[in-house]
Amino acid sequence: MEKTKVAIVGLGTVGTGVARLLLDYGDRTARHAGRTLWLEKVVVRDLHKPRAIRLPQGVLTDQLEDVTANPEIKAVAQLIGGLEPARSIMLRLLESGKDVITANKALLAEHGGELFDRARELGRTIAFEASVAGGIPIVTNISQCLSANQITSIHAILNGTSNYILTRMEEDQCDFAEAVAEAQRQGYAEADPTMDIDGTDAAQKLAILAHLAFGARVNWRDIPRRGIQTVEADDLQYARQLGYRIKLLAVAELIDSGLQLYVSPTLVKIGTPLAEVRGAYNAVSVVGDAVGRVFFHGLGAGQMPTASAVVADLIDVVVGRAPITFRTLELWSQRYDRLKPPSPEQMPGRFYLRFNVEDRPGVMAELTSVLGRHQISIASIIQHPGSNDDPGVVPLVIMTHQTSEGAVLSALEQIKHLSCVQGGNVVLRVRS
Amino acid sequence: MEKTKVAIVGLGTVGTGVARLLLDYGDRTARHAGRTLWLEKVVVRDLHKPRAIRLPQGVLTDQLEDVTANPEIKAVAQLIGGLEPARSIMLRLLESGKDVITANKALLAEHGGELFDRARELGRTIAFEASVAGGIPIVTNISQCLSANQITSIHAILNGTSNYILTRMEEDQCDFAEAVAEAQRQGYAEADPTMDIDGTDAAQKLAILAHLAFGARVNWRDIPRRGIQTVEADDLQYARQLGYRIKLLAVAELIDSGLQLYVSPTLVKIGTPLAEVRGAYNAVSVVGDAVGRVFFHGLGAGQMPTASAVVADLIDVVVGRAPITFRTLELWSQRYDRLKPPSPEQMPGRFYLRFNVEDRPGVMAELTSVLGRHQISIASIIQHPGSNDDPGVVPLVIMTHQTSEGAVLSALEQIKHLSCVQGGNVVLRVRS
Repeated sequence: MEKTKVAIVGLGTVGTGVARLLLDYGDRTARHAGRTLWLEKVVVRDLHKPRAIRLPQGVLTDQLEDVTANPEIKAVAQLIGGLEPARSIMLRLLESGKDVITANKALLAEHGGELFDRARELGRTIAFEASVAGGIPIVTNISQCLSANQITSIHAILNGTSNYILTRMEEDQCDFAEAVAEAQRQGYAEADPTMDIDGTDAAQKLAILAHLAFGARVNWRDIPRRGIQTVEADDLQYARQLGYRIKLLAVAELIDSGLQLYVSPTLVKIGTPLAEVRGAYNAVSVVGDAVGRVFFHGLGAGQMPTASAVVADLIDVVVGRAPITFRTLELWSQRYDRLKPPSPEQMPGRFYLRFNVEDRPGVMAELTSVLGRHQISIASIIQHPGSNDDPGVVPLVIMTHQTSEGAVLSALEQIKHLSCVQGGNVVLRVRS
Repeated sequence: MEKTKVAIVGLGTVGTGVARLLLDYGDRTARHAGRTLWLEKVVVRDLHKPRAIRLPQGVLTDQLEDVTANPEIKAVAQLIGGLEPARSIMLRLLESGKDVITANKALLAEHGGELFDRARELGRTIAFEASVAGGIPIVTNISQCLSANQITSIHAILNGTSNYILTRMEEDQCDFAEAVAEAQRQGYAEADPTMDIDGTDAAQKLAILAHLAFGARVNWRDIPRRGIQTVEADDLQYARQLGYRIKLLAVAELIDSGLQLYVSPTLVKIGTPLAEVRGAYNAVSVVGDAVGRVFFHGLGAGQMPTASAVVADLIDVVVGRAPITFRTLELWSQRYDRLKPPSPEQMPGRFYLRFNVEDRPGVMAELTSVLGRHQISIASIIQHPGSNDDPGVVPLVIMTHQTSEGAVLSALEQIKHLSCVQGGNVVLRVRS
């Protein structure tokens, strides 16, 4: 059987998983590739670090040149996180004639334009299934399987850490800090989980999906985003009373004023598939004008789900499918203008608002008259008696009808200054 | 922009949808194919039949030769149902040098071996995404996206008609006949819905998926199957009391004794994704040893979802991805032995049993002692007071622990002959 030599750069969690699939399960990759994928080299920084896998003699090296200078190595899984040296290494690999597979969404979200243009100039391919939603093959599904459609919307849970934290808060009725600690204990959250929690990770992945689905060359920094750090256990209970769960949604949707993009904790109706996504799972709900709604659910991270996506890409690169896709789609081409999403102020939507207010007559009238002046119409109100911790102050939850984020923010600005309001301004979106 | 000529054979519902996508939305196919897909010919039997679409002058023809004799036409969407003349036409198309796209699962389940071997001999490609689960791109996902995995199980709802009928029976608490009539009124069931209802359609699709996922060359007739015609509204209510819904599941699963395959109405735990699939939707839950569980949900039939899959295949064929997949996978190759699934008797599982029994002392002991003699252990029992329609006879529902279908069938044979049993033997599977 024909043999194609491949390499891995970076032997962290995912790199180890990829090495395992190539070394221990060569028969299955052979069946799907019609040839053996031969793991020739694994490049690491530190040769002496203990490794969770035994590699055959001569495979491990700390010299990238062992890969770049070897013309028999055709495809490289480049599995280093962060921006540098990941970017420079990817450029060196492309320039030495390798096709490159990556799982690094931050690198693509930041330098996709440069890297893809360079790959095209050199006639090379970059494959990146593993960069979004881990084990869910959403990149191939959008760029290949749904190619007959105008995609009209994507609603996705792309950050497993946030989803795990929200699930814990809801199911165990614990607060945000406790849920974060539990996520760290279970290995679902990093020691510093900021990028997962504040919506950065989801926005970077959304930028990639928006690019694939809408041809929108968008900078992830331009995507309005809120993280889950403002969500309290009480919000999950109020949401449930209203018939919703709270999920960190990444949304790309064609609306009248263009392509709306945002990441926000969002109330999702109980019983719909996205609301039922639990724990560290990811999910993507895509609507195409021909196919209707297609829903995908799977593990968004983890060693073997991510390795599964990387090895599928390796096979696609080696057999020649990925190069075709890469050539025809012209991803991140600088030929297209960069898209500026509509400013948050113009974004339509329904909203969930929570305030802590003084428990006295007239408060409801003050608040609702501010909303009324901003043409914000109220769908539901929840007010319960105050707790003993803080007598005299009660939470007030308002769910609005369709309005604009601009109207909501400007109303909130006024509400904040009302003497009856004692902080606790929470603004979440509601999926219509 | 480069132009590739394509043709359609058969202008029924799906053919019309495909023509519409090619004619009205050429820009999007061009973006994904890097060239224009030019609809050169549409072959129909009757030129004078009124059509739901206006084709450009000269496109419609009743001569297949206008396609076979035109070397510029590279790919043909062959959208005729049934076995003949669909089979002969596909052979003629392949022999005249065309790659062929089909949505005809019955044709593949019956003649896949012959057609795929002939295509390989001729260096041609057959693409068939639309043949299973309509708008869910499950063929590409299994044969390409999950290629790093050993698939260990597939649990799928592949027949939208049956799922629609079961949903109506559950939600409207109507009986089977009423639900079928409603499905016919809504266009979800044919005038003769036998093949949908008795499990034939699902077994044919399962044979294709089993082939893709396990390399199992299986004749769909060898797949044990039960349809939904024995399910009564009461069963749905009892199932709900036990915490389950009833779905027509198509299952392929690696177990100790080999690859277990069956189609059966099955109790699926409420709250799991498959249990929540409503109406005419399809869903596929796939487990791979690396990726874990991936769940897909979408419209399993209908004009535009199916056309979406056909046009994605057309693009894949024309750009060259589908030919690569077709060559490497060796589908339905006669090189492999035909797989005989384990006989139903050996198949392990949990079961739901319902009998109508006389309402008198001692009945429960008689029944359960038969089960005991067959080593069948009972997990739950439901017995309610009898109805006024049939005093003296009450339904008795038993859910078993893990056992074998052989044990259950042989116990039932004895139970049927007990004087206290008045018919109504319903056997359903329970998903563990």
